[in-house]
Amino acid sequence: MLSDDQLQDLNRPLLDEHQFRYQYLRDLLARRHVDAQDVVQQLNAFQVAIPSWALGTGGTRFGRFSGGGEPRSLEEKIDDVALLNQLNGSSNSISLHIPWDIPQDVPALQQQLKARGLTIDSMNSNTFQDQPGQSVSYKFGSLSHTDAAVRQLAVEHNIECVRYGQQLGAGVHTVWLADGSNFPGQQHLRRAYQRTAESLASIYEAMPSDMTMLIEYKPYEPNFYSMVIPDWGTSYSLCQYLGKQAQVLVDLGHHLPNTNIEQIVGRLRHFGRLGGFHFNGSMYGDDDLTTGSTKPFQLFLIFNELVDAAQDDTVNQEAAVAYMIDASHNTKDPLEDLLQSVESILGAYAKALLVDRAALHEAQENNDVVRAEEILRDAFLTDVRPLVAESYRQSGGALQPVAVYRAARVRESLIQQRGKLSLSTGL
Amino acid sequence: MLSDDQLQDLNRPLLDEHQFRYQYLRDLLARRHVDAQDVVQQLNAFQVAIPSWALGTGGTRFGRFSGGGEPRSLEEKIDDVALLNQLNGSSNSISLHIPWDIPQDVPALQQQLKARGLTIDSMNSNTFQDQPGQSVSYKFGSLSHTDAAVRQLAVEHNIECVRYGQQLGAGVHTVWLADGSNFPGQQHLRRAYQRTAESLASIYEAMPSDMTMLIEYKPYEPNFYSMVIPDWGTSYSLCQYLGKQAQVLVDLGHHLPNTNIEQIVGRLRHFGRLGGFHFNGSMYGDDDLTTGSTKPFQLFLIFNELVDAAQDDTVNQEAAVAYMIDASHNTKDPLEDLLQSVESILGAYAKALLVDRAALHEAQENNDVVRAEEILRDAFLTDVRPLVAESYRQSGGALQPVAVYRAARVRESLIQQRGKLSLSTGL
Amino acid sequence: MLSDDQLQDLNRPLLDEHQFRYQYLRDLLARRHVDAQDVVQQLNAFQVAIPSWALGTGGTRFGRFSGGGEPRSLEEKIDDVALLNQLNGSSNSISLHIPWDIPQDVPALQQQLKARGLTIDSMNSNTFQDQPGQSVSYKFGSLSHTDAAVRQLAVEHNIECVRYGQQLGAGVHTVWLADGSNFPGQQHLRRAYQRTAESLASIYEAMPSDMTMLIEYKPYEPNFYSMVIPDWGTSYSLCQYLGKQAQVLVDLGHHLPNTNIEQIVGRLRHFGRLGGFHFNGSMYGDDDLTTGSTKPFQLFLIFNELVDAAQDDTVNQEAAVAYMIDASHNTKDPLEDLLQSVESILGAYAKALLVDRAALHEAQENNDVVRAEEILRDAFLTDVRPLVAESYRQSGGALQPVAVYRAARVRESLIQQRGKLSLSTGL
Amino acid sequence: MLSDDQLQDLNRPLLDEHQFRYQYLRDLLARRHVDAQDVVQQLNAFQVAIPSWALGTGGTRFGRFSGGGEPRSLEEKIDDVALLNQLNGSSNSISLHIPWDIPQDVPALQQQLKARGLTIDSMNSNTFQDQPGQSVSYKFGSLSHTDAAVRQLAVEHNIECVRYGQQLGAGVHTVWLADGSNFPGQQHLRRAYQRTAESLASIYEAMPSDMTMLIEYKPYEPNFYSMVIPDWGTSYSLCQYLGKQAQVLVDLGHHLPNTNIEQIVGRLRHFGRLGGFHFNGSMYGDDDLTTGSTKPFQLFLIFNELVDAAQDDTVNQEAAVAYMIDASHNTKDPLEDLLQSVESILGAYAKALLVDRAALHEAQENNDVVRAEEILRDAFLTDVRPLVAESYRQSGGALQPVAVYRAARVRESLIQQRGKLSLSTGL
Repeated sequence: MLSDDQLQDLNRPLLDEHQFRYQYLRDLLARRHVDAQDVVQQLNAFQVAIPSWALGTGGTRFGRFSGGGEPRSLEEKIDDVALLNQLNGSSNSISLHIPWDIPQDVPALQQQLKARGLTIDSMNSNTFQDQPGQSVSYKFGSLSHTDAAVRQLAVEHNIECVRYGQQLGAGVHTVWLADGSNFPGQQHLRRAYQRTAESLASIYEAMPSDMTMLIEYKPYEPNFYSMVIPDWGTSYSLCQYLGKQAQVLVDLGHHLPNTNIEQIVGRLRHFGRLGGFHFNGSMYGDDDLTTGSTKPFQLFLIFNELVDAAQDDTVNQEAAVAYMIDASHNTKDPLEDLLQSVESILGAYAKALLVDRAALHEAQENNDVVRAEEILRDAFLTDVRPLVAESYRQSGGALQPVAVYRAARVRESLIQQRGKLSLSTGL
Repeated sequence: MLSDDQLQDLNRPLLDEHQFRYQYLRDLLARRHVDAQDVVQQLNAFQVAIPSWALGTGGTRFGRFSGGGEPRSLEEKIDDVALLNQLNGSSNSISLHIPWDIPQDVPALQQQLKARGLTIDSMNSNTFQDQPGQSVSYKFGSLSHTDAAVRQLAVEHNIECVRYGQQLGAGVHTVWLADGSNFPGQQHLRRAYQRTAESLASIYEAMPSDMTMLIEYKPYEPNFYSMVIPDWGTSYSLCQYLGKQAQVLVDLGHHLPNTNIEQIVGRLRHFGRLGGFHFNGSMYGDDDLTTGSTKPFQLFLIFNELVDAAQDDTVNQEAAVAYMIDASHNTKDPLEDLLQSVESILGAYAKALLVDRAALHEAQENNDVVRAEEILRDAFLTDVRPLVAESYRQSGGALQPVAVYRAARVRESLIQQRGKLSLSTGL
Repeated sequence: MLSDDQLQDLNRPLLDEHQFRYQYLRDLLARRHVDAQDVVQQLNAFQVAIPSWALGTGGTRFGRFSGGGEPRSLEEKIDDVALLNQLNGSSNSISLHIPWDIPQDVPALQQQLKARGLTIDSMNSNTFQDQPGQSVSYKFGSLSHTDAAVRQLAVEHNIECVRYGQQLGAGVHTVWLADGSNFPGQQHLRRAYQRTAESLASIYEAMPSDMTMLIEYKPYEPNFYSMVIPDWGTSYSLCQYLGKQAQVLVDLGHHLPNTNIEQIVGRLRHFGRLGGFHFNGSMYGDDDLTTGSTKPFQLFLIFNELVDAAQDDTVNQEAAVAYMIDASHNTKDPLEDLLQSVESILGAYAKALLVDRAALHEAQENNDVVRAEEILRDAFLTDVRPLVAESYRQSGGALQPVAVYRAARVRESLIQQRGKLSLSTGL
Repeated sequence: MLSDDQLQDLNRPLLDEHQFRYQYLRDLLARRHVDAQDVVQQLNAFQVAIPSWALGTGGTRFGRFSGGGEPRSLEEKIDDVALLNQLNGSSNSISLHIPWDIPQDVPALQQQLKARGLTIDSMNSNTFQDQPGQSVSYKFGSLSHTDAAVRQLAVEHNIECVRYGQQLGAGVHTVWLADGSNFPGQQHLRRAYQRTAESLASIYEAMPSDMTMLIEYKPYEPNFYSMVIPDWGTSYSLCQYLGKQAQVLVDLGHHLPNTNIEQIVGRLRHFGRLGGFHFNGSMYGDDDLTTGSTKPFQLFLIFNELVDAAQDDTVNQEAAVAYMIDASHNTKDPLEDLLQSVESILGAYAKALLVDRAALHEAQENNDVVRAEEILRDAFLTDVRPLVAESYRQSGGALQPVAVYRAARVRESLIQQRGKLSLSTGL
């Protein structure tokens, strides 16, 4: 983390431009009877969790090009997230992945988190890889495996994650299941589903009553003929089977081409079953790019559904939606990528907050297609970056996080501390 | 319809080749302890409904090229289906579309059907077009419309279809809803869903207790930003909302690119919610081509799921799956297209019946991927045409329906009777 | 068209807001040493042609819901385009479709065009429909047909279009070929290509030396197994076969899912073979929606390629790129849709003009991925609507074309003049 | 390799069934005046190269589950291919990947190859990974890199591959370029193309006059925004730039959803630019599954184009098409997967050889859509496995390669020899 002085010094040359832009936007919004500060406060309150596995350079099956200075331990990962949160004031929690992030000394960890102003938001299990010395293999599946011993191992691993989560105060246990098949006939599709449902039930029963299980779906990869949980309908059916603490997790990169994701989001909110998001950027599939880098309009439309639902009395507001990034950075500095991602998310949220919802609903009721569209577009086309920057400022962060990160030469310091060849766990 | 003598005359030159091929296949199957006649009997029992709207030449929005001799009335449509059923013995029912097929004289119609050995399998409503003189318009939706008057009209139209269905003995009422939006913002996604659910409930309540409502889904077209019922998950959720008489309808052309449709089929059977099929061929979307013309392996894998579920005691076998063709023929003679479609369906079914299920399940339990795949492939690669032809023969049909149809110069007769420019209702 | 006074009256209440916004943006850009007026002048010069077939309500194969007041003749179509051009100053030409727009009295037409300040930019042939009394049918193709008589008819029709184009001063003859096949085996793929190449050569030879032939491509619809010209590679190969006056036309809706269209645009500019654009909006395929309505970032990236190429000395700048809208409006007022489309196009162009190209190139050379991306995003996120509005103003148009169109109650007038049931030609 | 006696012993119990099936098929074909032995001879002559990198277990970025007994050296890879070729008589060459397969002792290698009856068909370069100690990195590209030093390294590596190819008698040098970008703006699209063209020209010039350069294309992965060579059109344009020895390589898994690949194959044959194939199976993208496992009909249609072109005097027959497998086996025994792949390829080829081409052309000329389709389907639906098995038999191989491989307990032997944890190079 930077010292407060250092941060202020780095902000100073950016302040005049910021004031110029923010003042204009405040005036512009005031003409529409919108109080900019109201929007900024909502941005201040918005937090998106950082995944521990995105703090290092990722790769594809074709190769990996590390950038250096990657965190070598859970403690260093927490340090990295603390830095991000210092810069943008919007990343005050971290998602852990077991076994990559097994805490060795829980009290010390809790102390570090507290000192950094961070929390653990969720635990993520891993049954898509075999660990050294593992008794049975996940090669042909885990929670859905035909062999009860493998299912048992996978269930126990998930329960172990739940236990770590309880110790660390994580409210969420996320299950992404890589299980599936590569060839027609390989897997009995109905039985694999039923075995999965039963395995999940065993984990569900082990959860404390204040924990949520998020069930992720993905149409393909690492299995290329069928995935046991390929679509939201399957996740949803499993949630219904399990109970109220089970919720669907939407990962932006886990959809077939041309899917209208914002509609799925609205649908799940309607059903009271949207538990969380994995933000990333996708052009072809699970590309794991920077959030907002390829389809910024879609990101806005998703937040439009979220804001609309959050302001709707007919929607069950009990279940919180957990916002998390899930990305992999092959060519960018991971920390820069995460700063960009959070900025895109805040921008999309700010735009969604600017939508004139009363006017939109009126246009929708009257089927005034052009007007309804223009109301959305008006919000989308507005340059909301000054609102986001003001939120950073009010949270004690950097007016321009990436620029300040670069000016502070953070990566160079990290390389010096951790080495050029340090490797973080992750994909 | 052809006279029995005519049919026998046309079969005669094909018989020797058939016997040669069938005898070989019977011997081949006997070596595997499979009785060919058992399979043929199951084929004999299999029936797929013919849609009234596929008896004329269809078109695209770019144009339509009619072929002549199209049925000009419901009576002529029934005649056409009777001919198909005479030729293949597998098309003994017909799907009607209201208002295109409003029966004028129900008793006369019932008599005609009885004389032809046909039944009405399902009624299909139409709220995607305005009829002349319609009080309010479906331009912006029907069951999901913001205006209660439009919803009411659409509900009443559906109830009218249900009433016709009762009169004609149809066990199924199919709802394909074209409702949706072309632009972000146009439609309030959650409210549109809720309105649709309530409209469907009104129709559901009007159904007799022995009728099934099939709820079709489609990701796009005629709306290109969102469809109210875009995927199986939405259909499924609506069925749960409505009750046990509501079931999901799978149309092969209504999926996003690369969807694993056979898995959806298996899933819905597992849930006891698969009510029916619309068979057609698709390469890009709702192409409405001849069934089996582009993805014959997928068609086989779908039947593999159906047969597997039908033989599984753990699956609820109460609800019958309604098999229907839904296609549009732009460049082919519609009757030839339908004969081809039924033949492809029978072939896929026959292959699925040949799968050595005990061996497959064993290979699946052992995760013997190659063996499981080879068991399926063995069935798929077997040339089952002799089984299908034998089924035609035993049903009193044509050994080669298309060839016999051509040899009998049916289209030429129809053009002579009905004219070159006769136009059937449909797309 | 509106009277000047009427237009000024309608602009007046919008002027103060415009000045407020424009002044800010001018100041903001000045801080970056960009002269807003320079950008506005380039917007003033930018023109996009309006297709005659988009002035009426379109439809899908499932139905059509007309809105009334549609132009009943070529003269009324010209009037509609004149109104659009009056409102936005950016639509000073019109694309004609033969036979829908065969001019009856060429001198009178030229006079009308001149009086309205309009030109004809391109002629578009139609060989995807049969006209009444046509000697042979296009059912199985036109320029690629196996029957020389059909090819001859199609060639002659295209040459007829070329002749009309010469008379009307159109510089472009566009060939969109619907030819293809619906089923494997239907068409001999290599021969169909060769016949097409030869047919195009016959048309090419008939063109005057100052006319450009644009060859459009489309992966599917109205044929669903193969299209003779499915992709840019095929168009490009045909252009090479024909000669320098042949160029590729890119239609935004004619690509397979996930295609990187901006790269195709850059590639074709590199080859000196990009002749023109058909702008529209697409989410699934040839959806023909309002330009920019679904993928505004992609539209910006396309203009980024165009501007980059236009400023690059190594690119052949001789061949002009023809900008044309090609859309169909099923649920919107066609004129509102076109005003929105042009506004989106101008906005994307304005943003592309704001890209700091020197800095971008430097970042690209250094593989500074984050910086390169941020430079593009900075331009994209800027609210350029004041630049577009200022361009409208300087061109004597409406500050907000759609709002003014509505305030002037244009549609109501058109319905009064032309009737509620007037039907324009088109899809 | 197995001893001849061992092979005969393993074939013996399969022979009776084979004779029964082959005799029937021979009789059936004779009725159509087709000589089965003619087809078998063409199958005997057909060879598909085995890639060295597919002999070990592959993986995804999520993990890898090795199966044991993988080849630890180039020599062991050659042994594995020799075994495959012994079993199926159709895999007499091997594709090498540099630097994974750098030959240490060329004369010894040549001797081994000769003794095994194998040749090297192609060299494949690798510029998508950095090798230990590499002077500059491929992180941001290789042949397209902005830095001339990186391009130079990549060019030299390719020339090194060419030199190895010359030494080993390989006729083909394959370039698959992973270069591209993950984010808009990262790469200057036109310049990246031009740099690539120039780099390729340097390699091309270094090739001997009897070597062919194959240029592969791929739409995405490992780059997810743009690939420098994303489609056949780009490969084709580069071939035109380079000269006659440059040809396009089609990899079945490298296409956007729904692409009609067989049409691309026909087109490239028409242009005289189809140089080779990478066979594999794909459902979503570059899934690298067993050839024929997901879309057997498409595989047949591709061979239909190849056979049609091979029998067409108007097609340039000079350039040979190189047939190669390119796959990765995550859950299957690699050798079983390759045996299955070759069998699927031979089956598709056999079916294409059975197409009644004269009748097909006649139906195409007459636009008899149904008949043309039925002619293709007749060949596709024929069970040609006896022809393939007879070809195996006549080549001295196994009647059922996978079954014999299992019966001979080859994998168990390999594990014993090479160990459970041996790891082959590859993805």
